[in-house]
Parts: sequence; structure tokens; C-alpha cells
Amino acid sequence: MAAFAITGVISAGKKDMDIFSIVLLGVVTATGGGTLRDIILDAGPIFWIADLSYLWVSIIASILAFFLVRYVDHVWQLLLYIDAFGLSLFTILATEKTIDLGFSNPVAVMMGLITGIAGGMIRDVLTSRMPLLLGKEFYATPALLGAIVFATLHYYFPFSDLNRLCSISVIFIFRASAIQWDLYYPQWLTYRIKK
Amino acid sequence: MAAFAITGVISAGKKDMDIFSIVLLGVVTATGGGTLRDIILDAGPIFWIADLSYLWVSIIASILAFFLVRYVDHVWQLLLYIDAFGLSLFTILATEKTIDLGFSNPVAVMMGLITGIAGGMIRDVLTSRMPLLLGKEFYATPALLGAIVFATLHYYFPFSDLNRLCSISVIFIFRASAIQWDLYYPQWLTYRIKK
Amino acid sequence: MAAFAITGVISAGKKDMDIFSIVLLGVVTATGGGTLRDIILDAGPIFWIADLSYLWVSIIASILAFFLVRYVDHVWQLLLYIDAFGLSLFTILATEKTIDLGFSNPVAVMMGLITGIAGGMIRDVLTSRMPLLLGKEFYATPALLGAIVFATLHYYFPFSDLNRLCSISVIFIFRASAIQWDLYYPQWLTYRIKK
Repeated sequence: MAAFAITGVISAGKKDMDIFSIVLLGVVTATGGGTLRDIILDAGPIFWIADLSYLWVSIIASILAFFLVRYVDHVWQLLLYIDAFGLSLFTILATEKTIDLGFSNPVAVMMGLITGIAGGMIRDVLTSRMPLLLGKEFYATPALLGAIVFATLHYYFPFSDLNRLCSISVIFIFRASAIQWDLYYPQWLTYRIKK
Repeated sequence: MAAFAITGVISAGKKDMDIFSIVLLGVVTATGGGTLRDIILDAGPIFWIADLSYLWVSIIASILAFFLVRYVDHVWQLLLYIDAFGLSLFTILATEKTIDLGFSNPVAVMMGLITGIAGGMIRDVLTSRMPLLLGKEFYATPALLGAIVFATLHYYFPFSDLNRLCSISVIFIFRASAIQWDLYYPQWLTYRIKK
Repeated sequence: MAAFAITGVISAGKKDMDIFSIVLLGVVTATGGGTLRDIILDAGPIFWIADLSYLWVSIIASILAFFLVRYVDHVWQLLLYIDAFGLSLFTILATEKTIDLGFSNPVAVMMGLITGIAGGMIRDVLTSRMPLLLGKEFYATPALLGAIVFATLHYYFPFSDLNRLCSISVIFIFRASAIQWDLYYPQWLTYRIKK
């Protein structure tokens, strides 16, 4: 939650915006993915309407980020890792929630992916920056893998905390390695076009 | 309603588009914010499905704007003020509708903000222009203030027309002043980054 | 379905992305319009949750497109025609579904338009390319005409297959002619602005 709010703040920040617009963007980034999930599943109210504390956490995290970020070096690098964390967390939580609501596993994996990616996409579209998803390094792949790992673990084992931890780690480690060492798909799995 | 449709037309217009695509953009700009509000609140049908007259007003306003706008000087300046009016109106109407539906005040203020801003954001994203929200002048702040003023007035006084008028004026005057005199937050509340 | 998935793949492809992100974009392009339609109408579950085969078709079409597209010349030209086909199909299917759900004809035409156009818009926004809709050639107009033709035929004749075929053809032929011969609105129906 807070993680994505912070990336919204950092990402939006390059634009000379005022604090309030930035906080708004942070909140939209943080809640966008989950809102989309709840709208598509159409099962009960949106999570931040049902429990206002999500809203407050996003707002407070955004305000803190606004003031603290100016004391941090290498902000862009930091942004990538915080975004990786947000991606991991949101993907797994959404996958779990979808399974708990009684949907089938493929739907849950798809919703996990959409939720994990949507917040960042909205942030990137609103701030007119090149979406992270469109970069060359692994981005959606770790999320897919993690969601599948979670769905599989959840099916066979009853340890929900451990399952969650494992699959979040899978995504984060995979994505962080991709950032650190510039991992990407081999050439033949990258898009080329006859010019 | 009509106001936002017109800004959609003016804003889209720079692109050499045909009349019908422009009217469509006008309608999407005008109805986008309210549609998002009704989807998130999930209380009854979308407003323009429940009452088709909203759709017709947007369409007619867009067509009129298409033909009349070529006789207007300083279109960009006009766009800013019409957008300010749309922002004021949509924010308050959405805040009121959300309160009437029985949601809590923080949710109502948040929905007012989202609704007021969403139409213009969609318009700016679709026409690939820099969102007004990202400008340096006050944009989201007046909307927030107005929504809070409305929620407070609504809580203490039963005069719904007067409450509405007051809070719409608060937003419009605040935003219009910001446009006129280039008001913005002091430096320390504007985003800076260590380069 | 598959058609829009393929345009998503081709369109996204210019960016050096990996196969999985591309497939994801293909799927979002293919399902985006219908998802928006089902969310706005709020009548039953989203189509791809109710019937997973839509999801699989999109995924398989995207993967095939990813591998096959490198053997095709003039990809951009091809993209335009496939997009035209997707536009035709989605517009009519959404119009029909909306009428079948008991909504009035203007709502059905509007939903047809939104559904037909939304997938392509989402694709263009996410890949930061200039939306096809904003081009000078007829784009939204054929979709509107086809949706009206379908609504009219549906009202008077009970031959649903024939009605569907006719109105899909109307859109596709109109749009394809616009691409082929660069048809557009006469000057006075194109947007101009006093500079």
C-alpha cells in the first residue's frame, strides 16, 4: 500500500507539482490496482471504502515520502526496488483475495497480475512516463510466476502466512535480480519486426 | 456536464480530428468522472444510463462547441476557465451524491475529488497532452477544499442549494485566481529532487 | 477477440519488450473493451470470468502473433486492417449484448461504440502511441453507423446472424475504405482553431 504510494510520489515528483497533487497521485497509484480488482470481481464494496484505514495509510505514506525523498540519493534506483516490492505484495494479495472469493485459479492468477501491474501503469500513464512494464527487463513475468506459485501452494498447503511469504519473495527476488543484473528474455523471445 | 464536454472538444481539437471523434471525446470527458464515481460506489445504474438526457446534453454541447469554437479568440485561456467550472461542479455534485448514498464523509470527499479530476485526466491522457493536474498552479487543492467545505456545511446546515452554491464558488474562485495570477504552493511544498 | 489481441501484440511490439509483457498487453487490448462494457452495464460477471475460454483464446492468439508477426511484411498496414476488423466485431457484439440485456437503443449504440473503441484506446495509451481514433481518417464514424444499422435491423428483423453480418460488414468496409483511400471528413467538419 504505502510502497506504491511512495513510488507514485517519487515518480510524479519530477514534474514540479505541488504537494497535494502529488499526494493525490500517490493515493491513486496505491489504491488503483485494488480498486480495479474489486470493480472487476464485483464482490462487495471497494476495499478502501470498506476500510478507510487503507486511505489514511496511503495519504500519510505519500506525505512522508514527499518530505523525506529529497534527502535520498539515487532516487530512481530506489523507486525501482520499492516498485518491485509493491508489485510483489499486490500481486499475491489480489491472487489470494480472488481465490478466497471462490473464483477459479486462472482467474485468480490473472487478477493478481492485473492488480500488481495496474497501479504502476496508472501512475506511469498519468505522469506520461514510459511504463516500467515496457522496459526490457523482466517485469510481468515474476508477477505471473509468483501468482502461480501462490495458487499452487495454496491448493496443497494450509499455511497461508508461509505461502504468502514464499510467493512474495519469489516475485521480489526475481524482479530485483532483473533490475540489478539487467536480466531479460533471450533475443528470440524479444519482439523484433521486419523493417 | 456541458462544461466538461466543451473542454473535451477544445482540448481534443488541436489534432485535426473529424467532428464525430471530437464529439465522442467530448462525451467521454463529460461523463467519465461520473461514470467512474458510479462504478466505484456501485449503487444503482450509471447516471447516464438511468437518465439519457445527460448523454444528449453532452452530445449537443460538444457539437455546438465544435462549430462555435472557431470564432473564439484565446481559446486556451477559455479552456482553463471552463475546465475550472467543470471541476467545481463535478466535485461538489459527486460529494453530495456520495453523502446522500450514506457513505462517510472522507469517502465522499475522496469521491468528489476523483470525479472532479477524472474527466479532465481522461481527456488529457487520450489527447496525449500534459494533464492540467500536473501543472504548477493549484488544481487539486481547490477541489479538496471545496469538497470539505461542502461536507461541513452539509453536516451543519439543511440548505442544500446554498451549500452547493457556496462550495462550488469556493472551488471556482480559488482555481480561477490560481489561473489568473499563477498562484502556486511555496517552494518547500513543491517537489524537488536531488539531482 | 483474437483480432484485437493480435493488434495489441503488433502495436506493443515496437518497444523491444519480452514475450510475456507483450502477451499481457495483447490480452488487455482484447478484453479491455468488453470488460469496460460489463462493468458499466453491471449485469452479471465480466465475460471472461464467466467463460474462461475468451482468456485462453486471447493468450494463444497473442503468442501466435508474437512468433508469426516477424515473417510478415508491411506489418503496420496489416495492423490497421486487423484493428478495423476488431472494431467492427466488438462494436456489433456489444450493441447486441446491451440490447439483449434490455437497455434502450441509444445506450446500446453508445456501449457498442465505447466497447469497439476502448480496447484500441487502452492499447494506444499503454504503448504511448498516437491513438488511431485521433487520426484524420474515419474511425469512430463507421462504428457509430454500424451500431445504428444493427439496432435498426434488430428492431425490424428477427434474423440475428444476418443482421450481425450486415452491420459488421458496414463498419469494416467503411473503415477499410477510409484506410485504403485516406477518406476523411470535409474541411468544414474538421477541427480548426484560430491561431
